[in-house]
Amino acid sequence: MRWTRSLIPTLRQVPAEAVVPSHQLMLRAGLIQQVAAGSYTYLPLGAAVLRKVMQIVREEMNRADAVEVFMPTLQPVEWWEQTGRREAYGDNLFVVKDRHGRHQAMGPTHEEVCTKLFDAYVSSYRQLPLNLYQIQTKFRDEFRPRFGVLRSREFQMKDAYSFHLTLDGPGGLSETYDKMYDAYCRVFARCGVPYVVVEAEAGPIGGNASHEFMIPSPTGEDTVLASDKGNYAANVEKCEIGSREISVIFSGNIAPGMPGAKYVEDSPPTGELAEVHTPNASSIDDLCKGWSTFAGGKLKPSHTLKTLVFKAEGDLTTEEQATAHKLRKEYGFENDGFVFYWVAVVRGDHELNEAKLRQFLTSFHGREMSLKSDNIGLSLMDESEAKSAGFPIGYVGPHIVNDLTTGVAARTYVVIDPDATHSGFWVTGANAASQHVMHFNWERDYQPKEQFHRTQVADIRNATEGDPSPKDDGGVLRESKGIEVGHIFKLGDKYSQSLKVTVLDENQQEVHPLMGCYGIGINRIIAGAIERDGGNDDGGVVWPMSIAPFHVVITPIKYEGRAAEVANELYEKLQAEGLDVLLDDRAERPGVKFKDADLIGIPLRLTVGDKGLANDEVEFKPRTEEKAEMVKLEAIIERTTAFVREAM
Amino acid sequence: MRWTRSLIPTLRQVPAEAVVPSHQLMLRAGLIQQVAAGSYTYLPLGAAVLRKVMQIVREEMNRADAVEVFMPTLQPVEWWEQTGRREAYGDNLFVVKDRHGRHQAMGPTHEEVCTKLFDAYVSSYRQLPLNLYQIQTKFRDEFRPRFGVLRSREFQMKDAYSFHLTLDGPGGLSETYDKMYDAYCRVFARCGVPYVVVEAEAGPIGGNASHEFMIPSPTGEDTVLASDKGNYAANVEKCEIGSREISVIFSGNIAPGMPGAKYVEDSPPTGELAEVHTPNASSIDDLCKGWSTFAGGKLKPSHTLKTLVFKAEGDLTTEEQATAHKLRKEYGFENDGFVFYWVAVVRGDHELNEAKLRQFLTSFHGREMSLKSDNIGLSLMDESEAKSAGFPIGYVGPHIVNDLTTGVAARTYVVIDPDATHSGFWVTGANAASQHVMHFNWERDYQPKEQFHRTQVADIRNATEGDPSPKDDGGVLRESKGIEVGHIFKLGDKYSQSLKVTVLDENQQEVHPLMGCYGIGINRIIAGAIERDGGNDDGGVVWPMSIAPFHVVITPIKYEGRAAEVANELYEKLQAEGLDVLLDDRAERPGVKFKDADLIGIPLRLTVGDKGLANDEVEFKPRTEEKAEMVKLEAIIERTTAFVREAM
Repeated sequence: MRWTRSLIPTLRQVPAEAVVPSHQLMLRAGLIQQVAAGSYTYLPLGAAVLRKVMQIVREEMNRADAVEVFMPTLQPVEWWEQTGRREAYGDNLFVVKDRHGRHQAMGPTHEEVCTKLFDAYVSSYRQLPLNLYQIQTKFRDEFRPRFGVLRSREFQMKDAYSFHLTLDGPGGLSETYDKMYDAYCRVFARCGVPYVVVEAEAGPIGGNASHEFMIPSPTGEDTVLASDKGNYAANVEKCEIGSREISVIFSGNIAPGMPGAKYVEDSPPTGELAEVHTPNASSIDDLCKGWSTFAGGKLKPSHTLKTLVFKAEGDLTTEEQATAHKLRKEYGFENDGFVFYWVAVVRGDHELNEAKLRQFLTSFHGREMSLKSDNIGLSLMDESEAKSAGFPIGYVGPHIVNDLTTGVAARTYVVIDPDATHSGFWVTGANAASQHVMHFNWERDYQPKEQFHRTQVADIRNATEGDPSPKDDGGVLRESKGIEVGHIFKLGDKYSQSLKVTVLDENQQEVHPLMGCYGIGINRIIAGAIERDGGNDDGGVVWPMSIAPFHVVITPIKYEGRAAEVANELYEKLQAEGLDVLLDDRAERPGVKFKDADLIGIPLRLTVGDKGLANDEVEFKPRTEEKAEMVKLEAIIERTTAFVREAM
Repeated sequence: MRWTRSLIPTLRQVPAEAVVPSHQLMLRAGLIQQVAAGSYTYLPLGAAVLRKVMQIVREEMNRADAVEVFMPTLQPVEWWEQTGRREAYGDNLFVVKDRHGRHQAMGPTHEEVCTKLFDAYVSSYRQLPLNLYQIQTKFRDEFRPRFGVLRSREFQMKDAYSFHLTLDGPGGLSETYDKMYDAYCRVFARCGVPYVVVEAEAGPIGGNASHEFMIPSPTGEDTVLASDKGNYAANVEKCEIGSREISVIFSGNIAPGMPGAKYVEDSPPTGELAEVHTPNASSIDDLCKGWSTFAGGKLKPSHTLKTLVFKAEGDLTTEEQATAHKLRKEYGFENDGFVFYWVAVVRGDHELNEAKLRQFLTSFHGREMSLKSDNIGLSLMDESEAKSAGFPIGYVGPHIVNDLTTGVAARTYVVIDPDATHSGFWVTGANAASQHVMHFNWERDYQPKEQFHRTQVADIRNATEGDPSPKDDGGVLRESKGIEVGHIFKLGDKYSQSLKVTVLDENQQEVHPLMGCYGIGINRIIAGAIERDGGNDDGGVVWPMSIAPFHVVITPIKYEGRAAEVANELYEKLQAEGLDVLLDDRAERPGVKFKDADLIGIPLRLTVGDKGLANDEVEFKPRTEEKAEMVKLEAIIERTTAFVREAM
């Protein structure tokens, strides 16, 4: 490509709207232009990188026996309703109304479409396994698009969907999952980006096993926790916590599966339970900031309890409804569906983890009511419901359960994180607006009467720097940031169940096939390649050879006379060798050309100037080297070709 | 690819929902699946063809010095309002409301986005010419999606936009236009599809010169007219008509630029002008069908006049407004804008051509009012306005202008197609509901008083089979059908004007750059390859080698024993030669395999069976040959490779 034919609008200044390095440099190096919030044009250099990443992904998918298809963007929104994902995605799902008034979802992923596709053509286990993938624009109506292409409203994704009769064995889901896992490792390695693989929650996409592939980056949006023993890594939504101390008061109330709890005796109360007037301090942050005014002295978040009230609702099968109904009668209350309130308590300096809470209470209710489905919706209780049930949001303390009305008490449960179970000095809500209490003591002040068995201790918070590793081998969790570029899931039969898709097995029985799904964020690989350690420096981008828009830039000091002739000749010859070459044929000063070559990050620059040509030499300068080297004209093609091929 | 790994759902039956061969065969050969009206999944074979066509397009665009970019689907709808295209597209434009209530257009093309992109980065003529292209999914909310991928709501398009300082000379619009024209010819030739290039109207996209590339096909939606002399072809919207006979009555009222009119004397009236009661016969069709009841005898459409009333409105510049205002005063009427009524008359068997009418009246008013802009909106008069102005829609005859009220008469013009000017036996509207007249005679019955100069004769109808070629060389126009696969336009400064984009020219003057735009329908090439002469037969699809999903299918009679070994070996070796190979490893009967191979249209089949292998031979059968040939194993790789390469 000749520079003057292309459009490479480089910028010397850092654009004010960009905060992360990849966003800044993608704008500065002329890779992208913002068209609207979260929607970007890929300019020639950006489009070239996009194509190279796609090609690598395509090759590795084919190698992993995935078969390429191309599904449409517009999808019947009814399918999204059938799988419950219209609600799960909420406002993130773009829905467009057509001229006939019908609604179409604009695919952020294609589980529904692909499962329906499968249903149309596959009826026997003999046609399994099947693994279909596509590379395509996805749409997601982000509340706040940001960080350039890292969180945008339309983006390029590779998504794959596999179908199986069994989990294990030849042709099983695990076999394909492992194959895709390996393919993902090859994709990221070939794209030249460092990555870590972490355990992950399946999230709103559903299912029960998943891994994320992250490019470590201090500005990444995702938090990774890894044991310093090197044998465990997970994202913050998923990361478990090793064994912790729990107050002996709750020794009979530990959730099954908690890692080996150690019971400890508590200190006695630090003083009488005392109310403190705390206006406008419904958050822990405001409470601690205002404490010197409210009560005098300092208050650390770790000396407070954060109490949140959730509502859990479930869609039960007919059979389950019967069980639940019986149970409700036992508890002496009637309600029309499965509705419970959960008071969740974590230490003020910790973050509640909704996925952990959901998992815990799904299994709790499941045991209690012999439920099979895991279709429990969880949400923070809304203000009006909280008011009528008697929870003063922002000022709730755990002892609210002492005084609930019978109807509310019957459906209310409490779950406490281990670190919040101890009875030291706690400040917590006083169960009245603008009031907190201090010297709260579990043993003395928490008295839910005959319902104490409904108090549970469970890991319901995010792991954090310094927590014990769940391997319980003395490892300590360390926190770091990353950019999620890949995600693989074992979906199980979530979609084949909800879309009522079956195949005949060896015994001619109809069974729901198992599915896996596998995503790669193409754009994020590009941003991640810039964000990675070594992916940029003061001069600009530093591309890995494999995905660089061009392998080589030829920079004539002046594009005229013999320098122009030699530059043209090198340009033709290197292209004939199959290299992607950019010829800087602009009438710009050499300083500008050098700065631009560095900024756009081409891995190798060949500088052609009269001085060197007097000795039949051109300057050979890799982007990552400080110093250039003079190479004879007769050797330059071979040298350049070898350099590029080696770095691929 | 191994057949069992892929998803190739062939169908023996013709699906009821498909009427054109390409749609039927794309379903039967397992290329596509319909997901919703006008939205399709490309199954593995379809996706493979799609990629091959895209690759050819990409290579030819790069060769023509176009530079690849990738623009977003979501576009600010305000830009579409600025160019007037939101209205021009109407309901065809998908508009999606985001979570913040803002509207985004889903790009059916990208003139606005690309012009804005240009504006952001290009400020000097030195950066010109620039030609940017992309290959991308486009969206169009078709009223009635049909014919499979030929008219769908989302489709793949290559669109390019070029920018220039001048029309002519080096770097000018015409130079790039011609280069793209040639590139298009190469694209279609390489894809193996026959094509004709026809002159075309620019249509709602705007501009003033354009060509369409059509694949001839009897089921195509587009009508092409070509001179039997072989020196002229155009689509029906654009096609001009050679010199025709015009009644001498109108000899002073011929529109400038009409091809050499021949004046003829007319016959005298055939009888007294007589009213006929014609209830529910507002269309020519109903009128002729009901004529025996209404009046006795037969009525041919060619003996009727079709009279349509249009409203022309314009956005005038300040200067133009002054001229128009002066003129309106002369005509003794006042109105707030540029509003005229046009009564258009064509023979009942002809179709009015709105583009020709618009072009004629734009130039007519332009001359009359010294207008520079060509921004005149034209629409059929709506019912309420027609009522208040005194036009009984469906029953209007040209002689209505004899009796219009002064206010309406002042703004009413009449335009007659040459073939409708003669004074023979005409049936036409009686200017009263449910009434027609017979024996209408122009000279006797058409009396617009002092406004006769406002009656114009102009070519305002579609050309049709048998019309004289506009070359006036004795050529006769022949009508045929085609599938539009490419369209190139000289846009001029339509977009740079309306979006207020300028560059500095050599004299540091701000000028609006000229633009060209260039589209290729990727999906339509696929359908067109099937629809083309020789693109299908009773057995199924017949792919051109260059875009076939696979070059070769290896069909073992039974996939076991030595046949399987040899088939595997050929599979590996041919792939190593760079060929795309499908191995039919299914446990199906040979007849099924042969039928499927024919149906999916792979250009070459190698059949491996024990009988042939006894002589170390395999069967070599091109898709287009009736008979197969036995080829020695030692020669088969070379023979196959040569066959494929030759056919590319």
